[in-house]
Amino acid sequence: MKRAYLDNAATTPILPEVVEAMLPYLRDAYGNPQSLHQWGDEARETIEEARGQVAALIGAQTEEIIFTASGSEANNFAIKGLAQAQQSKGKHIVISAIEHFSVLHSARTLEKWGFEVTEVPVGRHGLVDADEVAKRIREDTILVSIMHANGEVGTIEPIAEIAKATKKTGTLLHTDAVAAAGTIPVDVKELGVDALSLAANQFYGPNGVGALWLKKGTRIIPFVDGGVQEGGRRAGTENVPAIVGMGKAAELAQHDMSSRMTRLSRLRDRLIQGLSSTIDHTILTGHPTQRLPGNASFCIQFIEGEAMLMLLSSKGVAASSGSACTSRALKSSHVLAAMGIPPEIAQGSLLFSFGLENTEGEVDYVLEVLPPIVDRLRQMSPLYAKFLKQQRGGR
Amino acid sequence: MKRAYLDNAATTPILPEVVEAMLPYLRDAYGNPQSLHQWGDEARETIEEARGQVAALIGAQTEEIIFTASGSEANNFAIKGLAQAQQSKGKHIVISAIEHFSVLHSARTLEKWGFEVTEVPVGRHGLVDADEVAKRIREDTILVSIMHANGEVGTIEPIAEIAKATKKTGTLLHTDAVAAAGTIPVDVKELGVDALSLAANQFYGPNGVGALWLKKGTRIIPFVDGGVQEGGRRAGTENVPAIVGMGKAAELAQHDMSSRMTRLSRLRDRLIQGLSSTIDHTILTGHPTQRLPGNASFCIQFIEGEAMLMLLSSKGVAASSGSACTSRALKSSHVLAAMGIPPEIAQGSLLFSFGLENTEGEVDYVLEVLPPIVDRLRQMSPLYAKFLKQQRGGR
Repeated sequence: MKRAYLDNAATTPILPEVVEAMLPYLRDAYGNPQSLHQWGDEARETIEEARGQVAALIGAQTEEIIFTASGSEANNFAIKGLAQAQQSKGKHIVISAIEHFSVLHSARTLEKWGFEVTEVPVGRHGLVDADEVAKRIREDTILVSIMHANGEVGTIEPIAEIAKATKKTGTLLHTDAVAAAGTIPVDVKELGVDALSLAANQFYGPNGVGALWLKKGTRIIPFVDGGVQEGGRRAGTENVPAIVGMGKAAELAQHDMSSRMTRLSRLRDRLIQGLSSTIDHTILTGHPTQRLPGNASFCIQFIEGEAMLMLLSSKGVAASSGSACTSRALKSSHVLAAMGIPPEIAQGSLLFSFGLENTEGEVDYVLEVLPPIVDRLRQMSPLYAKFLKQQRGGR
Repeated sequence: MKRAYLDNAATTPILPEVVEAMLPYLRDAYGNPQSLHQWGDEARETIEEARGQVAALIGAQTEEIIFTASGSEANNFAIKGLAQAQQSKGKHIVISAIEHFSVLHSARTLEKWGFEVTEVPVGRHGLVDADEVAKRIREDTILVSIMHANGEVGTIEPIAEIAKATKKTGTLLHTDAVAAAGTIPVDVKELGVDALSLAANQFYGPNGVGALWLKKGTRIIPFVDGGVQEGGRRAGTENVPAIVGMGKAAELAQHDMSSRMTRLSRLRDRLIQGLSSTIDHTILTGHPTQRLPGNASFCIQFIEGEAMLMLLSSKGVAASSGSACTSRALKSSHVLAAMGIPPEIAQGSLLFSFGLENTEGEVDYVLEVLPPIVDRLRQMSPLYAKFLKQQRGGR
């Protein structure tokens, strides 16, 4: 059976070069970077090299990178750590309505700690309006956090514009760039942000490693308390092989970015055009042009998304109904809801996310197997029957 | 040059079998366990198998294991998460004076959040007295956290006795078993604890993965907020290769525990006896018998420990002055201080920690290279000169 992994938003495969770079640190070079001996020295030099590679990917300085164990940890660290560090100035924070759960739920935790959180709505394409952010900044607003790109619908947010608003008031701006960094050009200076989260498993690096970039001089309260690792800001023995892998993946992403973007956009557009022309009643979700190169997300009406995923999986195709972090909970997407998509349409959400291993043949395979799946499911759908009846009645 | 890695307390090498078990998940089986397709299913089954292996190591049930990114994260999660979940009952917690910084500094954070923390002192061998713990439990005490074994001085604490005290009052008991689990027999039911932290890099598994065991029915507030991973209790894409590695390492540790203990104890005792008989003015730190099999920790008087480590490293020997999590901060050990060792002696602390790769030849090599290093450093030591002068004066 053919197989097509089109769920790169959930996690990308690790590039062979990245695995090769990691192997020596899994096998022989096992020192703890904090140790005062040759093994420790080697490990320490290695992670500093990786730190430089990650910094270079986002136009940052090496010492501004703090390694974490995931993008989610980086987001928890940023939201909780920056809010706690600033709380003498105020206890109000602003986020968008379509943030990843690691930002959204961290903000919920802050509410339990006595902070107030305001959510900025988004337009129907999932865009955050910089003016809408500016309107919500108050005297006691200490932090704004707006994601760089949304992994579910692909929309890329106008972070540089939002930064103009936060700079006027001197409010800290964090951006969750987990879906963006390593995929599209991300430069912390051009963006004008104060903190930025990223994760290696979004750009062909390993799982288990992410980073928080923190502009030099920005105060933060540690999230993982303990030892003196990462300049005393993040405790826990450094995961040397994973950090090395993230560094190598960052280097490759920086080098190949433009060719990767061209390649992925072509696959994405082929699928978007093909799907829209072969299946009726489909809606492209997210922004039509301002979107991640590998993201093709839809709502296929009159269908229950999970059933579609199962049948696609039985044909060897891996896709998603949105965020992998919630997919098994089978909850409807807060992102689609915030974009004004009604629940009965949102339940048919379907995300194909492309990666470097994918081919045009795989796109064509999806375009071959998906229409009969949709037909089959619609024939069992009471909603579709109702729709057809209404159509006939209307004629 | 000969090389001897005697710093296994900082991090153990990964066993080749463990690396082999991880490789398929670094290379081809890259699915996100939350995804609803074949790749996801395979990853999910794999981490559940590893969860069972880790549970078996500590006599727990599979679903009671929550994977984390490190022992430090597991300790942060336990201390902060259990305290927050119990705070309606009281805001007092009890820890020992020799806890790892990930427990100690988490407790400091709780103090900032309005909790009160009492530290139980330890005896000169680093032992916590269960009666001393019992005395400090108050009506509003919601959590006691005492480490299972101290990685710096090797002392194994009487956790089962302490559990008798906490059971009487119905107080939750957490133990940081990072230095113990996988090294000595650890059984959560025999210990009678409610929560237990462990880390794979202490028993020949990879860095970047740990676990919190939480007795079924024990409430906890999540530490890393976000997606629904780990039963909604710990967000972040599961680090599948590392989790697989931890499972394999747990299986091997369980299987080989008694032979490993015999082997490591023999190396430890050979070094303790050899060193005590070749170098004057040395003190074995930690308990003489109730100690970790691979731990040989000393204070070598009239010497500054870091200089000793540098010179040992120049001879190819990796050792430590105590905890790797603080060694580069060059602070004197809070553990030795709590044991009543004065700072001028504590500064000469030296920890050799043995692992499976070590040999008697390596012990003999240390016994050959260390005495001249000590002689050389003592000749430059004002403290030693003063001591000699006093000795001569005393005659």
